[in-house]
Amino acid sequence: MNCFQKRREKIYNWMAHEGISLVMVEDFEFRRDPAVRYLTGQPGDALLFLSVDRKSHLIPWDVNIATLYADSETMQPYAEYERQPVKAIRGVLERYKIPKNSKVEIPSTTAYPRFLNFVNEIPDFDIICREGGVCAEFEKNRAIKDESEIKIYRKIAALTDELINLLEKEVSSGALKTEAEVALFIETECRKRGCEGSGFDIIAAGPERSFGIHAFPSYTGGSFGGDGFSILDFGLKYAGYTTDITLTFVCGNLSKAQEKMLSLVEKAYKLVVPMIKNGESARNLGLAVDTFFGRHKKVMPHGLGHGIGLEPHEAPTLRNRDDNKWILEPGMIIAVEPGLYDPVHGGCRLENDFLITEDGAEVLTNSRIIRL
Amino acid sequence: MNCFQKRREKIYNWMAHEGISLVMVEDFEFRRDPAVRYLTGQPGDALLFLSVDRKSHLIPWDVNIATLYADSETMQPYAEYERQPVKAIRGVLERYKIPKNSKVEIPSTTAYPRFLNFVNEIPDFDIICREGGVCAEFEKNRAIKDESEIKIYRKIAALTDELINLLEKEVSSGALKTEAEVALFIETECRKRGCEGSGFDIIAAGPERSFGIHAFPSYTGGSFGGDGFSILDFGLKYAGYTTDITLTFVCGNLSKAQEKMLSLVEKAYKLVVPMIKNGESARNLGLAVDTFFGRHKKVMPHGLGHGIGLEPHEAPTLRNRDDNKWILEPGMIIAVEPGLYDPVHGGCRLENDFLITEDGAEVLTNSRIIRL
Repeated sequence: MNCFQKRREKIYNWMAHEGISLVMVEDFEFRRDPAVRYLTGQPGDALLFLSVDRKSHLIPWDVNIATLYADSETMQPYAEYERQPVKAIRGVLERYKIPKNSKVEIPSTTAYPRFLNFVNEIPDFDIICREGGVCAEFEKNRAIKDESEIKIYRKIAALTDELINLLEKEVSSGALKTEAEVALFIETECRKRGCEGSGFDIIAAGPERSFGIHAFPSYTGGSFGGDGFSILDFGLKYAGYTTDITLTFVCGNLSKAQEKMLSLVEKAYKLVVPMIKNGESARNLGLAVDTFFGRHKKVMPHGLGHGIGLEPHEAPTLRNRDDNKWILEPGMIIAVEPGLYDPVHGGCRLENDFLITEDGAEVLTNSRIIRL
Repeated sequence: MNCFQKRREKIYNWMAHEGISLVMVEDFEFRRDPAVRYLTGQPGDALLFLSVDRKSHLIPWDVNIATLYADSETMQPYAEYERQPVKAIRGVLERYKIPKNSKVEIPSTTAYPRFLNFVNEIPDFDIICREGGVCAEFEKNRAIKDESEIKIYRKIAALTDELINLLEKEVSSGALKTEAEVALFIETECRKRGCEGSGFDIIAAGPERSFGIHAFPSYTGGSFGGDGFSILDFGLKYAGYTTDITLTFVCGNLSKAQEKMLSLVEKAYKLVVPMIKNGESARNLGLAVDTFFGRHKKVMPHGLGHGIGLEPHEAPTLRNRDDNKWILEPGMIIAVEPGLYDPVHGGCRLENDFLITEDGAEVLTNSRIIRL
C-alpha cells in the first residue's frame, strides 16, 4: 500500500465508524484544500470523493496533470459534470449506488449559502457540514507526519540549511544587496535543486521595513542588509511540503533599544526550545514566551508558531489562547518563531523547524541571527 | 473624497436601501477578500466594519502596516479583540451603539459551522449571510473599474508590454533558456519598475510541459523555448491590481497537428476580439469560441476569459454556461485567452487584456504568438 492509500484507509475506517457513506473534498482556486493532495498526490484543482466501501474517485479539472500525479482508484474529467459540484455529487452517488438518505459529508469550510444549495439540490441524501467532522480528521492526521513525509522533511530541511549558509555568504559579501535580489536568489537556487519553489511569499524586509510582522509588499527593489535589522522569512517547497524559517541579519551599531529587542528574542528562543517535546501543551509554549516578553514590557503581536506541511500554517497552533488544546506528539513538525517589532527600531525574528520525537524534539533547520 | 471613500459611499447607500446596519468584511489567510483593500487600501489581514451611518472601522492584524496604507475613519488593533471575530463584532456593535435586532451582514463565503457560531454567540442581532447580498454588491462594483483603477491599468499594461518586448528579445537571443530564468526575469524586472510582484504564480512551461492548462509546478529548472510550444502566462501586480497575459513561443518545424492547433487558436482570437464590446453577453463570447473549436473537433478545457483586478480571476466570467448572466459594460477589464492543449503536441494559448469602452473595447496589452 502506498502512502496515499494508507492515508485513505484511515479515513475509510473513520467513515465506517461515523456512518458516513460518502465524503467530498474540494480543492479549487476559490478555496484551496491540501487534503486532495494529501490523499491522492494530485496537486490541486480537483474534487475528490471517498466512499465508505473503500473507493476513491478523483474529478480533476486537468486530466493530463492528474494522470501524471494522482493516485486514485478511478478518475473522471470535471468537464463531464460541466464543472458543477452538485452534478458531480449526483453522478458519484449513482456511480457508487449509494442508498438514499445516506450521510454525505462536505467540507466544514463550505459557505452557508452554498451548503443550503447542496441541501436543496440533493434532498434525498443527508448532507452534513460540521466542525469536528471529516475536515477535523484530515487536520488531525495531517498534523502527525508519516514516514514518507518525514523523509521529505529531512531532504528539504537540508536544502533549506544549504540555502541559509549560501545566503549568509552572499549577503555578508555584499553580492546580494536588495530585497528582490535576496528573494529571487532563493527562488532560483531552490528550483535548481528540484524544489517546486518557495513555500509562501518570501518576506525580505530591509531595515526600513522590518517593523512589519509580514512586510508589505513582501519584497521590493529596496536595500537589504544595511544598518539595523533585516528580516528574511522563507520556506522551500518540495513534493508539496514547505519548511518555514526566519533569519534576522543585523548590521552596524545597534541602538540600546535594538540590542534589547535582539537579546529578548534570543532569550525567548532559548527558553522555549527545551519545552518542545512529546506531551507538552502547545499553548504552554506560547504562554511561556508571551509571559517572558510581558515581564520585559514587550508584546509579540503574533502566535509563537504553528505546524508546517502541505500548508505553511497548519495544525498544531502554538498560540497562547485558551481554546488551544493541542498537545505535542511524535511526528508533528512545527515552526517556532519568537519575534519583536517596533515602528522605529525595526523587527527581529528567529524561526526554526522542529520534529517532535518520542524523547523530545529534533531541530530540522539551522536558521540564526546573522551579524554582518 | 478619495477613491476609497467614494467606494464606501456606494456601499453605505446600498446598506440604507437594504436596511442593513452593519457589514463585516474579513481578509485573512484562511479566506482572502480583496474587498478590504478595495474599500480602504489596506493590503490584507484585517476585519473591516461599515456602519450604515457612514463610518468605517478597520481592525488590522498589523497596525503599523495599516497606518501606512489604510484609509478608514477609525482603526483598532485586532489584538484588542484577541483576534476573535465574534468579540470584534460585539465590540463594534457597542461602539456604534447599534440597536438590538438590527441586521448585521457577514460575507457570503462564511462557512456554515462558523455562521451557526456567529448566530449563537450574537443572538440579539439578525446575522445575515446570503448570496446576492453585500458580497454580490462588492463583486458588481469591483467589476466596473473606476477612474483611479483605469489609471493604474494604463500604467501596468504599459509595463506588461515593456516586459513582453524584453522577453521576446531575451528568449529569442537565447539569454533566457530555462523556465525558471524566464519567470525570475519577470519577477526581477517588474519589481525594479515598482510593481508589487507578479500577480499570480507565473506559468512558464516549456515544450515538455505546455500541455497542462496550468502547468504544475508552475515553473521548473527545465528548458523553455525549444522545439514545439512554450507557454508563458503571467501578470504584473501594481497597487494591488494585476494584468494577465499569455505568450506562446513557437520554435522549430511544427507537426501538422501543431500547426492546426496554432492556427485555430489564432482564428478563435480574431473571431472573438470584435465581439468584445459594451452590451455584449459575456457568455456569447465563450459560446462563439467553443462553437468554433467544436466545428474543428477540438475542445478548450477552460473558460474563454474573466475579469481582472485585485484578483487575477474576478467578475465578469466569459464562461459559456447558461448561468452566466454577465453583460459587458464600460469600465470592465477582461482577459481573453483562447487555448488548446494536447498531451503529445503541447499547448498554445494567446491572452490579452481589454478595457470595455462606450464604443467598443480597447486592447490594453500586446501579447502574441512569438515564432523563434
